[in-house]
Amino acid sequence: MKKHKPTILVVNDDGITAPGIKMLMETMQEIGRVVVVAPDSPQSGMGHAITIGKPLRLDKIELYEGFETYRCSGTPVDCVKLAVNVIFKGKKPDLCVSGINHGLNNSINILYSGTMSAAVEGAIESIPSIGFSLDDYTMQADFSHCKPFLKEIALQVLSHPMPVAALLNVNFPKGDNLKGIKVCRQAQAKWAEEFDTRTDPHGRPYYWLTGEFQLNDQGEDTDVWALQQNYVSVVPVQFDMTAHHAIPVLNSWKFNL
Amino acid sequence: MKKHKPTILVVNDDGITAPGIKMLMETMQEIGRVVVVAPDSPQSGMGHAITIGKPLRLDKIELYEGFETYRCSGTPVDCVKLAVNVIFKGKKPDLCVSGINHGLNNSINILYSGTMSAAVEGAIESIPSIGFSLDDYTMQADFSHCKPFLKEIALQVLSHPMPVAALLNVNFPKGDNLKGIKVCRQAQAKWAEEFDTRTDPHGRPYYWLTGEFQLNDQGEDTDVWALQQNYVSVVPVQFDMTAHHAIPVLNSWKFNL
Repeated sequence: MKKHKPTILVVNDDGITAPGIKMLMETMQEIGRVVVVAPDSPQSGMGHAITIGKPLRLDKIELYEGFETYRCSGTPVDCVKLAVNVIFKGKKPDLCVSGINHGLNNSINILYSGTMSAAVEGAIESIPSIGFSLDDYTMQADFSHCKPFLKEIALQVLSHPMPVAALLNVNFPKGDNLKGIKVCRQAQAKWAEEFDTRTDPHGRPYYWLTGEFQLNDQGEDTDVWALQQNYVSVVPVQFDMTAHHAIPVLNSWKFNL
Repeated sequence: MKKHKPTILVVNDDGITAPGIKMLMETMQEIGRVVVVAPDSPQSGMGHAITIGKPLRLDKIELYEGFETYRCSGTPVDCVKLAVNVIFKGKKPDLCVSGINHGLNNSINILYSGTMSAAVEGAIESIPSIGFSLDDYTMQADFSHCKPFLKEIALQVLSHPMPVAALLNVNFPKGDNLKGIKVCRQAQAKWAEEFDTRTDPHGRPYYWLTGEFQLNDQGEDTDVWALQQNYVSVVPVQFDMTAHHAIPVLNSWKFNL
């Protein structure tokens, strides 16, 4: 592990007042100097959105005693960009941790997750980055069983070179009978949506997004499987989205141009 | 090519009134039956955001003569989800095309792009999907040189099985001296942000996101290189974000738990 006290950026997508971020910042303070930058309102499902059509606010606030805390009007990814450029002024933190998300971000959920996109943005900035999520959507979620894992995984990341252009997606089962850590791949799945169609008082329809998680993967090396077995799942994530295996396939197509 | 007239879903992120979508829907109508579903306002930079905290509107509108057109209050990804579930009612279209985006979505930009995320969502739904973007941000952009490529690439996708869990990211240089199509990988790059800090009339600071594209990749097999050489770049994209090469690395770490 690095000899100096590491600087740790803590972000999330559930907003600055969510219990999940509180557990994460308190645990990180046992390891290093913590700077908290989080959205001023819940930003679940914001994916990798950034704010380009309007300006952003970033306010230093007194919310948690003993913590340097900033509230941001933008998305989770905006929080990371503002932290790196306005707060750290280019002197990057040693670690970026995002979460703990209220709700799982395993499998395909990584694409929709503001928590994971903030961690991806950290990795794009060449900061070792980890996203943490718990299988409990409620604001009453109990994060206490996550604590030793948060600390150990952060320490491991600080003491190893991270694989190039990669970050970690860590998901916790609910409850405290955890079997340990499993390094996994992202399970193949999708959401089978169903829109709940309603009619407003003026007679016009509106739609609520609802859906069911549809697993299309029986592998025993996936994050979904690990969580079902009560392991903490750790998926290394990359942000090169090239389907390298498809390049020769496309090169065999005959474009008439 | 399939014998029946294909059904083609056309989406975008610049909004239903953007010139780019008009060129795309007009070209697709030469191939099949077109259904247009696009955001009611510009949604650039929305990435893979979805709307979960509030309901969505979806209105059939008379905007373009001869086109079945819907305006959606949500994000580009919401448009695809609503199209599949509410308009097509589970009977999937044969093709999903997104764009033409006003501005490039090459390299790392794919992560921030609503245009590309809509195409990714199409692919998650197992619909052959393509995102198209032009190197011109303005609303006066000239898309005429894109037209033969839009049609040919769409026809190729309709006549081949797409590689599993993949879609295409197609970017056009500006101007009409195109050399042809190059199948590429996503270039390694990032945005070096600089926030333009201003003070509002009440003395409080606010921040505008600005930045410079920073290429960290001299490969001659990338989308950035192809566009510089005046080729149309075609990158096959996947949505499995697992860094498979990093799994053995992480398995060599000794977690003390």
